[in-house]
Amino acid sequence: MIAYDDMSLFSAIAVLGGTGQQGRGLAQRLAMAGERIIVGSRDAERARAAIARWSSHAAAIDAADNVTAVTRADVAILAVPYPSVDALLAELAPHFKPDTLVIDVTVPVTFEGGKMSIIDVAEGSAAQHIRTRLPSHVRLAGTFKTIPAHLVGDVERALDCDEFVCGDSDGARSQASALVQLLPGLRAVDVGALSRAESVEHLTALAIAINRRHKIHDARFRVVGLR
Amino acid sequence: MIAYDDMSLFSAIAVLGGTGQQGRGLAQRLAMAGERIIVGSRDAERARAAIARWSSHAAAIDAADNVTAVTRADVAILAVPYPSVDALLAELAPHFKPDTLVIDVTVPVTFEGGKMSIIDVAEGSAAQHIRTRLPSHVRLAGTFKTIPAHLVGDVERALDCDEFVCGDSDGARSQASALVQLLPGLRAVDVGALSRAESVEHLTALAIAINRRHKIHDARFRVVGLR
Repeated sequence: MIAYDDMSLFSAIAVLGGTGQQGRGLAQRLAMAGERIIVGSRDAERARAAIARWSSHAAAIDAADNVTAVTRADVAILAVPYPSVDALLAELAPHFKPDTLVIDVTVPVTFEGGKMSIIDVAEGSAAQHIRTRLPSHVRLAGTFKTIPAHLVGDVERALDCDEFVCGDSDGARSQASALVQLLPGLRAVDVGALSRAESVEHLTALAIAINRRHKIHDARFRVVGLR
Repeated sequence: MIAYDDMSLFSAIAVLGGTGQQGRGLAQRLAMAGERIIVGSRDAERARAAIARWSSHAAAIDAADNVTAVTRADVAILAVPYPSVDALLAELAPHFKPDTLVIDVTVPVTFEGGKMSIIDVAEGSAAQHIRTRLPSHVRLAGTFKTIPAHLVGDVERALDCDEFVCGDSDGARSQASALVQLLPGLRAVDVGALSRAESVEHLTALAIAINRRHKIHDARFRVVGLR
């Protein structure tokens, strides 16, 4: 048994798709901050094998299949690419505990024909699309959309930028902001309602455009004039 | 007669709608940088009267009606609100000199019902819309979209953020970037084609959302990880 820090902010955080670059980084960094993490994957053995290869805090991270992970968590981070979200939520929707905070980190971009562009999402943004696929008894916030995934995944590297948070309620936003700020060096910037996700997702597109144009890999942002 | 600095980057910059907050600030700040400025307004007398009230470099700034201003300039800054652009361009389009660099600073936002939102522009962005209203022999760049207008207008205040530049050609982007960097403290960040304007305009919407939510007035951005 692992003895968890009593000071943890959440009782358990499920990182779904936790074997990808961003999920792996978030799982380890949140474990480093003292949170109890359950990495979800299509099959628990695959998650367990992935965790065993991680450098940091692997011992403090549990593995489970996606459904088991969400049934045990009060926060569920959807760390899968946008095109995989619908299938994942179709499987998970009946299993969320009431009041679970779901965290959407996806960005609807495509690189078709070598050109990056935003996918036209009928609901306006990935976050608003995801809201329509969730039961009403869970809450949704969007964040970790702008920070480069490989930067999050490089767990030895200090972070130094702002992360934008939108959500369907004040509670979702303030809890998601607290989650962001568990990662030292990140500042959470509350930008309001879930409808603001469209602008946040465009900000990510802009970061990708800057990366490509300037031959860098980790453009990110800080707000000047705040606090 | 005014003796102009031979080191000026452009032969003359027309600031159309130069009597508004942003135009006023750009005109004065560019004059301070040694550029020759012609402020355009619906009538030249009104422009002249406005300039006489300005604190800085008024003597180095000419006034003219909008059409006269563009016929004398190699750069034309459209410093009017987005809803005024169509009427202005209908008047000006036949008068631009070949190869004029037009600078679009507009953002298609509305505050209807007290809620700020992006106006749905058929072409994708204000910049792309403006492109359709310009003759093919002029070039277009979008910039000064994100920095708060009242900050630009406060000419005694030092600037300290990034300005994003998109444009219809490499030449338009590099000239617009040079223009931006005439203002000390501003860094021009080239984000590519004019189609990137949509993301830049969303960035401005995000700044406005941050201002409202955090009760501040001048949220602006810096890119981390660049240079």
